[in-house]
Amino acid sequence: MVELKNDRFLRALMRQPVDMTPVWMMRQAGRYLPEYRESRGKAGDFMALCTNPELACEVTLQPLERYPLDAAILFSDILTIPDAMGLGLYFETGEGPRFRKPVRTEADINCLSVIDPEQDLPYVINAVSTIRRELNGRVPLIGFSGSPWTLATYMVEGGSSRDFARCKTMAYNQPELMHQLLDTLAKSVIVYLNAQIKAGAQAVQIFDTWGGALSHSAYREFSLQYMNQIVDGLIRENEGRQVPVILFTKGGGQWLDDIANSGCHALGIDWTTHIGNARQQVGDRVALQGNMDPAILRASPQRIRQEVATILEQFGSGEGHIFNLGHGITPDINPDHAGAFIDAVHELSVKYHQKSN
Amino acid sequence: MVELKNDRFLRALMRQPVDMTPVWMMRQAGRYLPEYRESRGKAGDFMALCTNPELACEVTLQPLERYPLDAAILFSDILTIPDAMGLGLYFETGEGPRFRKPVRTEADINCLSVIDPEQDLPYVINAVSTIRRELNGRVPLIGFSGSPWTLATYMVEGGSSRDFARCKTMAYNQPELMHQLLDTLAKSVIVYLNAQIKAGAQAVQIFDTWGGALSHSAYREFSLQYMNQIVDGLIRENEGRQVPVILFTKGGGQWLDDIANSGCHALGIDWTTHIGNARQQVGDRVALQGNMDPAILRASPQRIRQEVATILEQFGSGEGHIFNLGHGITPDINPDHAGAFIDAVHELSVKYHQKSN
Repeated sequence: MVELKNDRFLRALMRQPVDMTPVWMMRQAGRYLPEYRESRGKAGDFMALCTNPELACEVTLQPLERYPLDAAILFSDILTIPDAMGLGLYFETGEGPRFRKPVRTEADINCLSVIDPEQDLPYVINAVSTIRRELNGRVPLIGFSGSPWTLATYMVEGGSSRDFARCKTMAYNQPELMHQLLDTLAKSVIVYLNAQIKAGAQAVQIFDTWGGALSHSAYREFSLQYMNQIVDGLIRENEGRQVPVILFTKGGGQWLDDIANSGCHALGIDWTTHIGNARQQVGDRVALQGNMDPAILRASPQRIRQEVATILEQFGSGEGHIFNLGHGITPDINPDHAGAFIDAVHELSVKYHQKSN
Repeated sequence: MVELKNDRFLRALMRQPVDMTPVWMMRQAGRYLPEYRESRGKAGDFMALCTNPELACEVTLQPLERYPLDAAILFSDILTIPDAMGLGLYFETGEGPRFRKPVRTEADINCLSVIDPEQDLPYVINAVSTIRRELNGRVPLIGFSGSPWTLATYMVEGGSSRDFARCKTMAYNQPELMHQLLDTLAKSVIVYLNAQIKAGAQAVQIFDTWGGALSHSAYREFSLQYMNQIVDGLIRENEGRQVPVILFTKGGGQWLDDIANSGCHALGIDWTTHIGNARQQVGDRVALQGNMDPAILRASPQRIRQEVATILEQFGSGEGHIFNLGHGITPDINPDHAGAFIDAVHELSVKYHQKSN
C-alpha cells in the first residue's frame, strides 16, 4: 500500500491535531460538475454509472482534480442493498429512486435475506478497489451505506415519501415485522461496509437521511438501535490504522447525545444545528462533521466565505472538526462557488489549529 | 358576550390549573371528515370554502360535533395575506398552493404594501365573528396566520418548495430586500391578527411551517425576529381576558430557548422533540403545545392510546400542556382514530392534574 499523503481527514475524525480543518462535500461527485455530466452521458444513466467500476472511479476523482479536497467518497447510491435484495431499483426523471417490488407484507419481508456483497454487489467492491488504486495515496477514501431505517423507508414506500405513511404504519402496527426487516438490513450493512473496508475504504459513513422524520423514542427504537448494531459489527482497524465511522442522521440535531454514545467516531450534523452547541453536548466523545447549508453556495463567494468563518468560529479552537455541507451539493451550484467554499475552509481554519505557546 | 363554558385551553396556555389536559388538532376541520368533504363539494373548491364565511363556519364546527375538543380554530388558509397583496393564490391538485405572480425582484417587493384586513380580507374577519357567534361559548376560538418567513417562502418560490432555493438566495445575497419583504409581512400579520382578535379570536397561533429549514442564525435573523415583532404588536387583552399567542416553528426543536424568550405564551412543538426535555428547557416561561406524530393516528386505537400515555408521562405533572399533534391531521385518517386520540388525552391526563395532599 502506498503511503497516505494527506491524512488530515482521518486525523480529524480521531480528534488528533491537524494544520487546518479538513473538508469534503457530500455529493461532491455530482451534477454541478460539467465533467460529471459528460461521464454520465457516456454511461447512459445513473445506475449504469454506479455499476461500472471504471466510470464510478472516474467521477469519484473528478472533484479532486478541481479542488484541494481532503477526502474522496465512493461514487454509488445508498439503495444498492435493497437492489441486491431483488427490489428492482430504477430512477424516474424528477421523481428520484423507485423500486419495482416494494416490500409491504410479512411474506415480502420473509423472502429477504442478508446480502453477500462479493456475490451480490461486486461492482461496488470493484469500484472501491479501483478508486483506492487510482487515488494512489492522495487522500483517504470514504465508503458508505444507507442506514437500515432509511433503506426501509424506500423499500416499504417504494420510493421517496413526504410523510412515510406506509413505513410508519408498519413500525407502529407491526413493530416485530419492521424489526425483522431492520435486522436483515443491519446485518447486510455490516457485511457490505466490511467488504468496502477490506477493498480499501479508510473510513465509512452511514447516511440516515430519514431518521429525523421520527419521534425521539421511535428514532432510538427503529433507527439508532440498528446503527449501534452496525458500529459494533464493523472492522475497527485495517492497514494498521483505525477505520473511523461517521453517523449522519439528517434532522437528528436534538438527539446528538444519544448518537454520540453509539461508539462511532464522528457525527454528521446538518445546518439547523449550531455546531458550537453540538460540540458542548458531545464533548470529547466524537468528532463533528458539517454543517454549512448547501443553499449558501448559491450566494456570492464573499457571503460563502463569511458563512465558513462563522461556522469555524462557532466550533472554536482545537480538534475534531471535519468541514462539510449539511447535506449534498445541488446540481445548480456554480463550481467556482464550491471552490470558494473549500478554499475558505482551509485558509480561515489555520488559526484555530495553532498551538498557543 | 356569552360566558365561555370550557376554558381549559385558555387556562393551560396561561399555565393555570385544569382538570385534564386540553386537546385540539391542527387541521381538525379537514378532509379526513366525510362531512368536510361534503361541504367542500358544495363550495366547489378550497378557496371558495375559505372565502364563504357561512361555509367556513360550518366546517370549523364539524369536528366539535364529533369530538369533545377543547378549542375551535378558524377555517382558513395561511396564504390569505399574500393573496390579499395581489399575488393570485390558487391550488393545483396534488401540487399544493401556488401564486400566479410570485415576488422575485426589488420592483416586485417595492409594489407590496401592508394589508388592511377589514378592506382586503373581509371574508376572514366575517368568518371569525360568525364562528364566534355560532360557537356560543362552547370552547374558545383560535385565530391564526402564517409567519412572515413562511409566507415569504411561498411568495418568492411561487409555491411549495423542497430546498427554498430562490428564497434562500434572496436572503443570503440581498438581505436588505428580504428584510423589506419580511417587515411588510410582519406589519400585515399584526393588523391581520389584531382584526381577528377584535372579531372574536380568543387566542392566536403563528404557523412558522418553514422556519426549520434555516440555520440557527438565519432562523433568528429571518424568522424569529419578525415573530418577536408580531408578538410585541398584538392586542394583549380582550373581553377582560388575556389573548395568548402560540408560536409554532415546525422543525424548531433546537431553538426552543430562543423562541421562549419572544414574549409568546406557548410554543408549538413537533414530534421530533421530547416534550419532557422541552419542558426542562423552557421552564416556566411558556406553555407547550403538542406533540404526537400524526402518523400514529394510522396505527390501532390501542397503539394511539399508548403513545398519548407516553407523551403525557414525558411532560409529567403540573400545568402548561395543550395536547396536539406535531403537525396537521392527514386526509387518510379514520375519524374513529382521531376520536380515540382525543378521548385518550382526556382520560389519561386527569391524574397529572390532581393536587397532591
